[in-house]
Order: sequence, then structure tokens, then C-alpha cells
Amino acid sequence: MKKATVQITAQQPIKNPSVQTPVMMKSTDGLYINIHEAALINYPAMALNVEGFKLSAHLVPDAVGNKGYMQTDAQTPWRTIIVSDKATDILSSKLILNLNEPCTYEDVSWIKPVKYIGVWWEYFVSGKSTWAYSDVTNVKLTDDFSKFKPNGRHGATNENVKKYIDFAAKHGFNAVLVEGWNIGWEDWIGNWKEEVFDFVTPYPDFNVKELNAYAESKGVKLIMHHETSASATNYERRLHKAFQFMKDNGYNAVKTGYVGDIIPRGEHHDSQWMVNHYIHVARTAADYKIMVNSHEAVRPTGLIRTYPNWIAQESARGTEFEAMGGLSPDHTTILPFTRLKGGPMDYTPGIFQTDLSYYGTGSTQRVNTTLAKQLAYYVTMYSPLQMAADMPENYERFADAFQFIKDVAVDWDDTYVLEAEPGDYITIARKAKGKDEWFVGGITDENARTANINFSYLPKGKKFTATIYADGKDASWNGKQQSYTIKKITVTSESKLKQQLAPGGGVAISIK
Amino acid sequence: MKKATVQITAQQPIKNPSVQTPVMMKSTDGLYINIHEAALINYPAMALNVEGFKLSAHLVPDAVGNKGYMQTDAQTPWRTIIVSDKATDILSSKLILNLNEPCTYEDVSWIKPVKYIGVWWEYFVSGKSTWAYSDVTNVKLTDDFSKFKPNGRHGATNENVKKYIDFAAKHGFNAVLVEGWNIGWEDWIGNWKEEVFDFVTPYPDFNVKELNAYAESKGVKLIMHHETSASATNYERRLHKAFQFMKDNGYNAVKTGYVGDIIPRGEHHDSQWMVNHYIHVARTAADYKIMVNSHEAVRPTGLIRTYPNWIAQESARGTEFEAMGGLSPDHTTILPFTRLKGGPMDYTPGIFQTDLSYYGTGSTQRVNTTLAKQLAYYVTMYSPLQMAADMPENYERFADAFQFIKDVAVDWDDTYVLEAEPGDYITIARKAKGKDEWFVGGITDENARTANINFSYLPKGKKFTATIYADGKDASWNGKQQSYTIKKITVTSESKLKQQLAPGGGVAISIK
Repeated sequence: MKKATVQITAQQPIKNPSVQTPVMMKSTDGLYINIHEAALINYPAMALNVEGFKLSAHLVPDAVGNKGYMQTDAQTPWRTIIVSDKATDILSSKLILNLNEPCTYEDVSWIKPVKYIGVWWEYFVSGKSTWAYSDVTNVKLTDDFSKFKPNGRHGATNENVKKYIDFAAKHGFNAVLVEGWNIGWEDWIGNWKEEVFDFVTPYPDFNVKELNAYAESKGVKLIMHHETSASATNYERRLHKAFQFMKDNGYNAVKTGYVGDIIPRGEHHDSQWMVNHYIHVARTAADYKIMVNSHEAVRPTGLIRTYPNWIAQESARGTEFEAMGGLSPDHTTILPFTRLKGGPMDYTPGIFQTDLSYYGTGSTQRVNTTLAKQLAYYVTMYSPLQMAADMPENYERFADAFQFIKDVAVDWDDTYVLEAEPGDYITIARKAKGKDEWFVGGITDENARTANINFSYLPKGKKFTATIYADGKDASWNGKQQSYTIKKITVTSESKLKQQLAPGGGVAISIK
Repeated sequence: MKKATVQITAQQPIKNPSVQTPVMMKSTDGLYINIHEAALINYPAMALNVEGFKLSAHLVPDAVGNKGYMQTDAQTPWRTIIVSDKATDILSSKLILNLNEPCTYEDVSWIKPVKYIGVWWEYFVSGKSTWAYSDVTNVKLTDDFSKFKPNGRHGATNENVKKYIDFAAKHGFNAVLVEGWNIGWEDWIGNWKEEVFDFVTPYPDFNVKELNAYAESKGVKLIMHHETSASATNYERRLHKAFQFMKDNGYNAVKTGYVGDIIPRGEHHDSQWMVNHYIHVARTAADYKIMVNSHEAVRPTGLIRTYPNWIAQESARGTEFEAMGGLSPDHTTILPFTRLKGGPMDYTPGIFQTDLSYYGTGSTQRVNTTLAKQLAYYVTMYSPLQMAADMPENYERFADAFQFIKDVAVDWDDTYVLEAEPGDYITIARKAKGKDEWFVGGITDENARTANINFSYLPKGKKFTATIYADGKDASWNGKQQSYTIKKITVTSESKLKQQLAPGGGVAISIK
């Protein structure tokens, strides 16, 4: 329990033993049980108190200790229980999504799947760059940042962003996320500071117009970043100006962040007021035809059906935690049964340089997967917004493996859950939207295993070329992570493939 | 103390004995001492703990019990102590105003003094009209109010508002305040309801465009009303649309209200977050060239110098309390020494029908002044925004006395405090801005007295006509309130007038 509640100031342990939903269980006689909620609107999020085998709802309280405020006739969120004797049924279930109201927007033509890279992972691992422009430790939004001495490690510079734009354009990515572009990062956290960011003022070395024009000339979009530092009131006050600024400069998507203690002070990330805040942001963004990818927000409950521009969320431990203590090898065999039942997760997969000691920062941390498993995530971790999170130079070192990330779809016609056992393994196949292309992802926990992959979903009587990105024979999550093989085979709907996965490994297959 | 803290959910007693500032004291040896604060920005309001003769600052805490949040280098508000052996000096002091920063706006041409009437007092006393359109007790902003059965008592109807517009035009008022024009009043209070008003949707019988066009055709403005029910977060979310709605429809001034328990929940009317909220509203209003008159907001600290569009506030017991238990006859001999040291007060004077049993509602309440004292308030209670609060039909019954309200200035070149003793009496003369007109107001507490009024501020060697609106010989605040006399005399700068004031009475003089 202690390890489970590492303090990143976006989570707070409940006093009594409790568990976040979706919670995934398996009975001794093999019944799979999933408990969550759907359509969380104007109500606090539910956790589950755990007393032995008895579960009860814990509603996240507000600043004065009240659970919620309702006016008759009100609808509480649905309480969902998905039960099956097959784990694959749990993954296939659309119960939670379907319990949400249909899309409220008339025009959704502006909401599009996105494959993106970003000035981001280098902040966590490279030791060479950071969000902040200077090393001043006490800044205000009214300061003239051009008068500060640059620290020489600022990542969101014109030069660096152009490098990412070039790379995105070269390899067919839709967009480049840039974090650390706006003033305030010098003391953005830990001070419960309300006026922490203004969302419209770039650092002196980040030229908004120039970079957006450059990106546009290359057919690439920049993705805006709005870290709020959990100062939701500040964000709401500035929301219209921030979104107008985005539209004026050509942005159509924003990643939001809520790291820190919430303002309104005393509220929680998952209390009713904040639940409403996230929806308010998504709905307001829709007025500006902006897509939202929220991090550290309340975990989703299928609202992407109603507000499809709220295109993805983090809301669970994503890749960044691989650089902050690490994730266990079974983590991503659990997430599709838990966090992802509520909606798409911006997990930010695609780390090729998994051994972080490579950067010479003194870190001995590893991303706890093989390289091939990172590829598999593009299929196993559903999101219409998918990042290739590693740095361009790392992808260039493994151009053959990178080809899978370039090829893989981000939007799908259909999904086939081939094998699954929560905490152990998942194998999923998906058909690319509007294309005769299929992609398969298979992952395992810390144990090696043989994935049984069938291709029965392929059109009958036709032959396809499957490119298999697999763990090398000597690969392992805590050994030779970058050992992988790529081979092409011919498959039909009758084919069966027994594919060996390394400990903490995976397999990714593209079929054309 | 118990009587002093009547619960109107816009005030909350402090546990220990304490007093709101500005506090006015007089020592046994005749020294007048006034304690307040100036330039309250980004800091909680200060009350004073009282332990015998020891005073100490009590800062209003936030939702989690913290007093305030500061980032170096920060400025706390000034603590002000004004001391004199003359009470008149206390009233004349501009210390608090001058300790505020100069005006932050470049263009102030749109900020103008206003004399107004309003669809307002009738809600408190007539028994015939009210804010709400229907008697439904549970409404939502998404409801179609046109489907509700009207209660027949709605005050903000096209017909009634036109009557007020006609009266305003006829008698030279600048504006008509209309409360109860927008949906939500059916259950606006007591439920800690966040989405309580939307500020843009009129009731079915209030035609915004038609009424504003009608008012404009008569040279009159409508004053917008934004009761927030203390749901500040809701107001902030809707602020831009609300102000844009005002501009689109011709409004240039808004009366805001904060009756109720604050949202963000746990915050107080006077805590740091709310202090910032009021300023945020005033500054945002300035972007739209809108003037703000806030009720139930933190008491002012001279910020009208910095933000002159925050033209007036209530922030102490005003006339409405005469209909809710009554004000003591010495109340208004104290306010200029206390509440008004921070800035103009929208006291809403001018009640002619002071005995409320007149309306046949069963009320035996009285406004605890003579009619003449109500006239004097236009001089003693400084505000560039002044209301004639009574109903048109009452002014028509006392057309001769009403002439003073029509004549009196709302903006001044100079002020002469002639006599003053806190809790006992005040006599003030003022010169109308840019005009050779002077107005004098004198008031007394429950005791009759003789005001000694000099005219030494008049240009020397010239004769002027002074119209004196005085208490009748038999007048009294708890007897013949409407007994008054009007006479004209000739005065020069050498004149001295001994004017008898009735118990709870007053005198008003216009000089041309």
C-alpha cells in the first residue's frame, strides 16, 4: 500500500483500505468481475472501501467534507459491474461507453485521431533539457522573463522544436507536443500558487507564430500544453483567452495537466467540483474546436462518447512513471482491464532507449519492458491519440523497429481480443479504420510466454504479408531489452502463430 | 452581539469578540481614532479581535483554515490609523483612498456618476411583486421557464419596467435598475447551488432588447443585475458571456450580489480568494467598459482609486435592512466614520413611505428616519452612484420633497464637513461638480438637535437661494415621519443657520 501511494500531489490516499475503480477481480472459480462507474457528471468520483470481501462506495469529499450536492431530479452515475467467465469479454465490453449519453456535438468533423511526438521525454531522462527557461526560483507572471538569465537547458526552444517538427514531417506524424513553452515553470509546483501560468505568454526563445507557421508549412500541427498546476480556478479564469490564443495561432489540441494540490483549496482531484471542472474545460474547448488530452484528471467513465473532443486522458500511471521509480512488468497487462475501461489512455508508449543509464545522468533506472513490448502497446493500449514518446535520435537508431510506429493506425474499424488474463498477458488484433490493414499487439508480464495468435478476422481466401516485430531470443525486461527481431511471413485467415514473448516482452505485427 | 450578527448568509460571526473595520473609537479625553486597512489586494480582509482594550488582527481564513498565500516580494495591505481631536477631520481624511495605487485604466471616459431608480424596493415592502416569475420551488437553468405558470407577482415585467423607465425619463434619472429579470430566482438561495443563475436568460415576460431600446429612446439606461447567490465560481465561468450579453444589449453598469454561502465551498466572503474574485470581476468589467456596484462583497479599502469602475458597494447594512428588522436611528451617523471610509456606499436612500404598514401586508415595520433625513442622505452618504430607492408612486405623492432628489448632484468638486460626532450627528456641505450649486445634508440620531450650518464655502459677496427641506415641528423617526417643511431663504457666505432636526431627523438644503 505504501508503494502504491507515491506522492505526486495528484493523488491522496484514503484513510481506510480502499481501491480506485475500475477494479478488476477474479474469483477462485474463474469468474471475472469488473466494477466501475459510467457517466460521472456533477457527482464525486467513487472509490471502493475494502473490508475483507465487502466493498462499499467511498465518494470523494469536497473542501468542507460534504460528499456531493444534488438537485432533484438528478441522475447519479451508473454503477457498472461486468461479469464473465472469459477475461476477453471484459476487455470487449462496451457497457461503460454505452451507458453514457450520445455525442452532444452536432459537428464532429474537427475531432481527429492524432499520432504525435513531443518535446517531453527528454525532460525526464536526458539531463540536458527542462521545462524552465531560467534557474530563477521565484517568478511571477508579471515578470519580464527576457531579463532572466537563460539556464541553457530550456527544451522548448525554436531550434529544438523545429528539429521535432522536421522529424514529425519526415515520418508522417500529425503533431508535435511542446511542453515548457510558456512562462512560469521556474516555480510551478509545491507552493499552492494560484496565478501559476497564464497560458498565453511564451518564453523568450519560443516563437509561437514562427513555429506554428513552420509546422504548418510541413503539414504538422503543434499541440498546446496547459499545465494548470492544479490551480483550476486560475485556469477557468483564463480559459477563454487561452483557447482564443490557440485558435489565433493554429493549435487545435491541448494537453492539460493537474499536478499539485487543487485550487479551490480543499477540493480534491476527484471531488464533484473538479469532476465538473474537467467537463467544463472539455465543453468549452469544443466551442473553439479544440481537442483535450487531460493528465492527472479524474479517471474516465466513458464520457468520450458524449464529449468526443475529450479525446484521451492519462489518469493512471503512464510512461513517465518509468522514469520516476518504474512500473512493474505486469502493469500494462492490468491497465486495459482497469483504467482503460473508462476510455482512451494517453499512455505515451514507444520508448526504445529503455535503459536510462544510457544518458549518463547517473540514473540506473530502466523502463521495465523490452523494446518489442513498447511497440505492442500501440495496439493493446487503445487511444485515438497516440504518442511516440521517445526522442527522434533514438528512433533513428532503431529505424527498422520504428517503422511499426509509423505504420500503426490510431483509429480502428474493429477490435479482436484474442487472449487475455489480467496481470498476465493480453493479445489484441485491430483493423485499421477504412483500410485493409490489421495490427496485432501481444504483451506479457514478467514471465515469458507463448502467445497464440490467430488471424481469423482477416478476409477469407486472401493472402497478407505480416511483419512481425518480436522479442529477440535473449530479450528480457531486466536484461537485453533492445533485443528484437523483425520478420515477414505470409498469413491467411486460417493461419495460427505461436509467438514466443520474452519476460516483460511483447510482439507487434502489422498486416497488409 | 447576538443582534449584531443576524444571519443573512453573507456574514459569519468570528468566535472570539471581534469587530469589523473600519472601527471608530473615541477616547475619554476626546481623541478620535479610526482603524482600517487600505488597498486590500490578494490578501484576506482584517477584522480586529477585541480583548479589553487590546486589538489584534484577525485575518479571514480560507477553506482549509489558512490565512493567506503570499509570494515574495508581496505587499500586504496598509494598516491605517487616522487620529484627530476633531471628528470632522476623520470624515475629511483621504488617507485610505490615497494609500491605494492610482487608476490603472487609461481611458476612464466611460465611467460616469449615476442617479437611478429601480424595480427593487417594491420587492421588500409592497407584497405585490417579487423577483421570481413562478412559484415552482425547484428550477434548473435548463428548464423552459415559459412553461411554468406565472405567479402573477413578477416585478421585472415589460409593463412594470416601462413604468419605471417613463418615471426615470420624466424626472431626469440616468438609469433604472431591474432585479429579478433573469431565470433562477425560484430557488436561488439556501441550497448552496452552484449553477444558480446564468446571467443571460431573461424571464419570459422581460424582453431585454425591447426594454433597452425603449429606455434608450427615452435617454435612460437599464442597470443589469447579477445576483450570484455567492456562487463565485459559477459567476467567473459565465463572466465573459454575461458581460458580452450586457454590451450587446446596451447595458453599461451592473449591480452584483453575493447573498449566500460562498462557492468555492469553505471560502468566506472576506477570505483572500474572494477578495481577489471581486477585483477580478471589476477588472474584467473594465474590459467591457462596465461599471460595477457590488453588494455583500468585502467592505472597501479605497480601491475605487485604482479601479474607478468599481463605482460603489453596499458592504454594510443599507436601506434594505430597514425592511428586515430595521436600522437604529444612529446607524447613518456612524457609517460615514466606518464603512464609508473605504469608499462609496450604495446605501439606496430616499424612502418616503417610511411606515411600511401603509402597504397592508401586515408588516408594522418602519424605516427608522424622518422623510427629511432620507433626503439628507444624498449629501451625507457619499456615492457617485445614488439611488432613489422608493417607488415612483410614492415620489409622486411627495413631489415637492422629491424635487431635492431630482436636483441633488451625484458628483462633487468639493466637500465641507461642517459638524460631526460619530453616533450622534453629521452635517456636510458639498459643491456640485462643475456647477455653482451646493447641497447640504444634516442628520441626527434618535435625539433632536440644532444643526449649526454655515455657508462660508460659498463665493464671497454673492447671494444665493437656499431651499431648505426640514423636519416638521412634530416630526420624529418613530412618530410623524412624513412631517416636513420646505422653505426658501437667501444666503451668502456670511450666513449662519440654526436648523432644528427632529429625533431621528435631518435637513437637506439645495443652494443655487
